[in-house]
Amino acid sequence: MNANKTLNALDIDCGLVTDLLVRFIASQTRKTGMKKAVLGLSGGIDSSLVAFLCAAALGGENVLGVRMPYSSSSAESLEHAEQVAKSAGIAMCTHDVTAMCDAFLASSIVHQEGSGTFFQRGAGENASGVSMDSLSISNSRGNVMARSRMITLYHLSAATSSMVVGTSNKTELLLGYGTLWGDLACGINPVGDLYKHQVRQLSKHLGVPRAVIDKKPSADLFPGQTDEGDLGFSYEEIDGALFRIIDCREDPKDLVSSGSFPAPLINFCLKKITSMQFKRQMPLLAMISFRTINQSFNYPRDWSL
Amino acid sequence: MNANKTLNALDIDCGLVTDLLVRFIASQTRKTGMKKAVLGLSGGIDSSLVAFLCAAALGGENVLGVRMPYSSSSAESLEHAEQVAKSAGIAMCTHDVTAMCDAFLASSIVHQEGSGTFFQRGAGENASGVSMDSLSISNSRGNVMARSRMITLYHLSAATSSMVVGTSNKTELLLGYGTLWGDLACGINPVGDLYKHQVRQLSKHLGVPRAVIDKKPSADLFPGQTDEGDLGFSYEEIDGALFRIIDCREDPKDLVSSGSFPAPLINFCLKKITSMQFKRQMPLLAMISFRTINQSFNYPRDWSL
Repeated sequence: MNANKTLNALDIDCGLVTDLLVRFIASQTRKTGMKKAVLGLSGGIDSSLVAFLCAAALGGENVLGVRMPYSSSSAESLEHAEQVAKSAGIAMCTHDVTAMCDAFLASSIVHQEGSGTFFQRGAGENASGVSMDSLSISNSRGNVMARSRMITLYHLSAATSSMVVGTSNKTELLLGYGTLWGDLACGINPVGDLYKHQVRQLSKHLGVPRAVIDKKPSADLFPGQTDEGDLGFSYEEIDGALFRIIDCREDPKDLVSSGSFPAPLINFCLKKITSMQFKRQMPLLAMISFRTINQSFNYPRDWSL
Repeated sequence: MNANKTLNALDIDCGLVTDLLVRFIASQTRKTGMKKAVLGLSGGIDSSLVAFLCAAALGGENVLGVRMPYSSSSAESLEHAEQVAKSAGIAMCTHDVTAMCDAFLASSIVHQEGSGTFFQRGAGENASGVSMDSLSISNSRGNVMARSRMITLYHLSAATSSMVVGTSNKTELLLGYGTLWGDLACGINPVGDLYKHQVRQLSKHLGVPRAVIDKKPSADLFPGQTDEGDLGFSYEEIDGALFRIIDCREDPKDLVSSGSFPAPLINFCLKKITSMQFKRQMPLLAMISFRTINQSFNYPRDWSL
């Protein structure tokens, strides 16, 4: 099977999958006693698709799309999110996370005197007070934004008794392309088993605005950023490779030796899948008893006595 | 077995358990390529015990205890945390989360015109701008604090290449007495399989300061708050009941009918254990493929190809 045929094999029956996902959202939300849902609306395709699915499952009046711009977010993202809310028929609100993120990044960390060997990154670190921003590394500001958005969504969820619905797709989850306890955190996620290719297919089927479907996917952390630029491969390339490795359980070596996929692509996927495993799991607990949570005490989410 | 004998049955071999937990921290941290650890130091017994365990596993100079007060936190908590850092021989720093939390709580949420039926909690909600704090419900401010502390710890973790070590004990995890994606979020947790009774026993063994061991456990959200006041039962009562239900797999009905435990205590535990199951699991993904993450694609955390 070559790369193009692989993409055909990834195609889903949009009617059937929509039906399954709508039932999933409705049943899992109502099972908790809730009738409503909140989700972050970034203006990108994943959250747009989830908005359409939630509206079909719960009724648009019971779904709140939350725009959560940071000062560097693009105006186009905000416009696209509004288009999506209108076309999906859901409620929308806007909460700017700049004040919260900047309060964090501008705040200082005070070292106790005499405990100075822990921080070893340069002259500034030896001062008794260092700002959090001066400690930041690549992606760290993006993580602060993603986690501040999580706080916003969970606050709204608690205040309105609504389910937080996640929007990370299978490609992102397998690559670990998201923030742990940030955008990866949610109650339920209807699109976590859909590759990006399938998100696009289903979005077209459900009528997500064309401008959202056609633009280049981006985390919108800075102007010109794109997911595919970050990742170094196109989503079509990555989806094909992940599908053959994970879903088809094919030997990665064979995928390269047969000429189906280039070695750098396969190696990139393998490295990400394994090194990002921690983002798909709860914290590891040391086991000392007869029954350890998530090890020998391991029930489904909706378990009841 | 009556309630007092149950507590005896809960007793651990402190030397053996210390050895297991120290090896757990050392091996799980080094497996990731890290040599250092960060943890929140609340001044309470759980994080104090973890500080001592981390120091034994990684060396005190490689462990950072972070005090993260909010403006309403007690001065005593800060003093106790400092005593713990000194006696455990770890590095300590302080990061006040008040600015970040207050920036969030003072920020406003702007509703889109015409999407007004989602919020139905009173007159203020129909305004086009509502502050986040006016939306808050009981516990919600505490959740904002807990999640802001998570952001702080993960920011320090990324900046210093350190493992975030969790401090929630088995009693708290089973009751869901903690904030999802807040204090429950971490990389590894050495005390998640220890009941509070066992945390106390091990803390005495390792020399945690007596003032920390003897004070009433509290989330320190407001003056006079205690865990046992929140929960309605003492930790000794709860630990005994949880141990018999979970670890000994005894029938809850028999525990009541035999006179071993009062019905309200058993019912409280059963209700919390099941209703808080979601706090012990990753988000639920809708399953549509051959292999769904955390369902049919389910490897250990340290899986490698």
